[in-house]
Amino acid sequence: MEPAIKQLDAFFKPKSVAVVGATKRINKAGHVIFKNFVENKRRGVFEGEVFPVNPNEDSILGFTCYPTLTKIPGKLELVVIVVPANIVPKIMEDAASKKVKVAVIISSGFSEIGNHTLENKIVATTKKAGIRVLGPNCLGVYDTRTGVDMLFLPETKILTTGDEVVATPRPLKGDIAIATQSGAFGVSALDYLTGRQIGVSKFVSFGNKCDVDEAEMLHYLLYDDETKVILLYVEDIKSGREFIKVAQRVTKKKPIVALKAGRTEAGARAAASHTGAMAGSDKIYDAVFAQTGILRAKDMEEFFDAGKALAMQPPANGDNVGIITDAGGPGIMAVDECELKGLTVKRFSESTIQKFERLKEEGKLPKFATNSNPVDVTGSATSEMFEYATEILFQDPEIHGIILLGLHHTPALQEDYIDKVAKVASKYNKPIVACDIGETEMALHTRFRFDKLGIPAYSSPEDAARAINALVKYGLYLKKNGCLQDYVKSFLKNKQKT
Amino acid sequence: MEPAIKQLDAFFKPKSVAVVGATKRINKAGHVIFKNFVENKRRGVFEGEVFPVNPNEDSILGFTCYPTLTKIPGKLELVVIVVPANIVPKIMEDAASKKVKVAVIISSGFSEIGNHTLENKIVATTKKAGIRVLGPNCLGVYDTRTGVDMLFLPETKILTTGDEVVATPRPLKGDIAIATQSGAFGVSALDYLTGRQIGVSKFVSFGNKCDVDEAEMLHYLLYDDETKVILLYVEDIKSGREFIKVAQRVTKKKPIVALKAGRTEAGARAAASHTGAMAGSDKIYDAVFAQTGILRAKDMEEFFDAGKALAMQPPANGDNVGIITDAGGPGIMAVDECELKGLTVKRFSESTIQKFERLKEEGKLPKFATNSNPVDVTGSATSEMFEYATEILFQDPEIHGIILLGLHHTPALQEDYIDKVAKVASKYNKPIVACDIGETEMALHTRFRFDKLGIPAYSSPEDAARAINALVKYGLYLKKNGCLQDYVKSFLKNKQKT
Repeated sequence: MEPAIKQLDAFFKPKSVAVVGATKRINKAGHVIFKNFVENKRRGVFEGEVFPVNPNEDSILGFTCYPTLTKIPGKLELVVIVVPANIVPKIMEDAASKKVKVAVIISSGFSEIGNHTLENKIVATTKKAGIRVLGPNCLGVYDTRTGVDMLFLPETKILTTGDEVVATPRPLKGDIAIATQSGAFGVSALDYLTGRQIGVSKFVSFGNKCDVDEAEMLHYLLYDDETKVILLYVEDIKSGREFIKVAQRVTKKKPIVALKAGRTEAGARAAASHTGAMAGSDKIYDAVFAQTGILRAKDMEEFFDAGKALAMQPPANGDNVGIITDAGGPGIMAVDECELKGLTVKRFSESTIQKFERLKEEGKLPKFATNSNPVDVTGSATSEMFEYATEILFQDPEIHGIILLGLHHTPALQEDYIDKVAKVASKYNKPIVACDIGETEMALHTRFRFDKLGIPAYSSPEDAARAINALVKYGLYLKKNGCLQDYVKSFLKNKQKT
Repeated sequence: MEPAIKQLDAFFKPKSVAVVGATKRINKAGHVIFKNFVENKRRGVFEGEVFPVNPNEDSILGFTCYPTLTKIPGKLELVVIVVPANIVPKIMEDAASKKVKVAVIISSGFSEIGNHTLENKIVATTKKAGIRVLGPNCLGVYDTRTGVDMLFLPETKILTTGDEVVATPRPLKGDIAIATQSGAFGVSALDYLTGRQIGVSKFVSFGNKCDVDEAEMLHYLLYDDETKVILLYVEDIKSGREFIKVAQRVTKKKPIVALKAGRTEAGARAAASHTGAMAGSDKIYDAVFAQTGILRAKDMEEFFDAGKALAMQPPANGDNVGIITDAGGPGIMAVDECELKGLTVKRFSESTIQKFERLKEEGKLPKFATNSNPVDVTGSATSEMFEYATEILFQDPEIHGIILLGLHHTPALQEDYIDKVAKVASKYNKPIVACDIGETEMALHTRFRFDKLGIPAYSSPEDAARAINALVKYGLYLKKNGCLQDYVKSFLKNKQKT
């Protein structure tokens, strides 16, 4: 790993951290962030040293408080800054004297409101001192394994009824890294993924990107063993050339899914007023993403759906999708979305159709089941029918990915079909995604059980089609670049570990 | 109401019903459907007479069983048929002798598997006798008010843990009618809407449409006071001319949202193998929907999202959308989706911008809040900021619809902002939709509370944009046809009642 990239380690696993602006006032960000570190340290999750910095306090939460960074004994790797913007330059000079490795500036009030001079001052100091900076105006870092937690948004809120409910949840451990320009959207992403029981490796919020930007962070994540998939939310990319160079390296090892806001003229105008940066034509971004093998999601839901699919299933070796369903209508909806995404849903091969015909003769599939793709096991569906049909599609080399629509409403279908299908799927390296429609108990349980067994499940046929599309598009990209086999090998090795 | 249409009343509120194929065997459809009627009758929900028909039983669930329809005493309005296909023609002859008004043929095994002769035989009998028929191969009717319930799919299922969970929920009372060619999709729709706490007026499944089809059912629903919005799932429309004529009448009074499967060539092929009907070019459907003012949803989620918006909010009087947000990124995402849908998100008028500037001067809005559309109340958002901003956008006559993005993660924002916004909204006849992102407790609660107060809430900025799009497109259609004012008047009258 290049030393400049290695240095970014200190954002995620610092041996020591100082929180400048730590305070006893409970609703202040400086309190929440300091407390996060303290609690994680006491639980043995965060293993570094923790120092509060505040000239007006002697101790906070039992920790000796220091008036300035320079008074802290020993080496200091990470500084988290939560003080008013105008004080930040002075803090940065202290950080430079203290020779800290990295700093996260949570504080806002810089270029995002036109205060470029103040931001430039910080950049000058830190560049000279070799300090790498995240922010300003960001939500910092969350690492599910090391206990680094800079999220200062209230973890719970109190309703008018007096009930306390989760407001900003901490994510589960998992394979997905979230790298986001918008802190607010990033936190929403954590909320979404946690609620859907999808795990996260690292969360990093860029804010104004006065120093560390997307390109460098992608580069860092390339080497991060915990991260298998990168979800990237961007409004503008400044260092385009560097970004392309790095992204091309990363995507050969790990998929990147991008949500680029400001697609339309009005959207770009809104983005400009939000970040102070011109976003550039959307077509340029399309070209950059295509060139670098970054999968572009068209909206928030596709962003998360694709991330989940790529974290759980291997990419496809081609673009032909086989569909199994127990409901005609939803089967057609899946076909439509596949085709609209540029995938093919070809009529099954004669040999596959013959296999289905044989099942019918043996009474193992309803006589009236259509079987040209989709194969419709009909409302008479049983667990065995899904099992047989799945096996047949996995065996067909002309089918590169499978969508299984298992609407649970059919009378004879029992929950165990999920286990049977997962068992079949585990024998093959071909991607499969599932769908059950509904928002009451059985549907929620069905999707949860599929997820649990490693088959990503979705709540609409179109969502499932978009998920398989991500697996196909990424597979074709890897194939074109001659690295599909290596990726699949490493993907399967990782699956076995977990 | 035309007498032919009036006759369809017997599907939804029959004075008497016979279930042919009623049985004591608990897992049989004939048992479940008969029991549904019996239980609803015992609870006083279903007010008609109920008769089981089965030559092999004396009584079922305490009700005298009749060997044939002809043996039932008195008048008979509705017959539900759940016997093997080959017996159905004979049953239909009995129904004709008995002079029943309408029949629902649940049984499959007709034209959908190529058995056209059998289906034609039934049509000949019923046409002659003047009996109107739903099906065959359908899931029949569910009416949330009269207790007509032909859903035979298991209401609950037992998991391998032994737990009993809801599998096919019965919907809440509400304003949305579901008319669907696919029974399986229709049931999924009930599951989805029930889980999301969206109410339903009537559910009707067409199946093979040997007699009653979409056109006639839309015509019937035009006069149905309980139905305010129609969600229509179709794979093919046979009586195109009649459909256009009726739809044009209906959409001037009630919005119709259509999900037409088989959009692509492969999808149409799948549809053909599923229903036995050729679907025709998708462009024709696009033209028909445009001509009739039917709103076409591009996927399942948009279908439900649009239905919910139209049931809860009045249509817009123009296409310019104002956006309030407490998070920059999601604000841009909403702008993008609005523009991509053909809406405009114009820079606010000078007078509106001045109002925001005044709030800033008064310290009621952060100084750095951008306010050119979206207005960004920022991460410092309070309930009052949302209240003020909402009021300003409602007052601006150049804004025709509002999207409110209230991400709950911001520290100072409390739940009561929802009530404040709803109170402001209640003074105006301009549509507003809300969004909060997240899948854990506070996000779910926030969306639920908005819904409860009549502001439809969505889980992504794009979903919210698609919802306001439905309200704009329908409003523009009504306006073009000179019936916007009448519609809004009747919409508001209905709102007051509920």
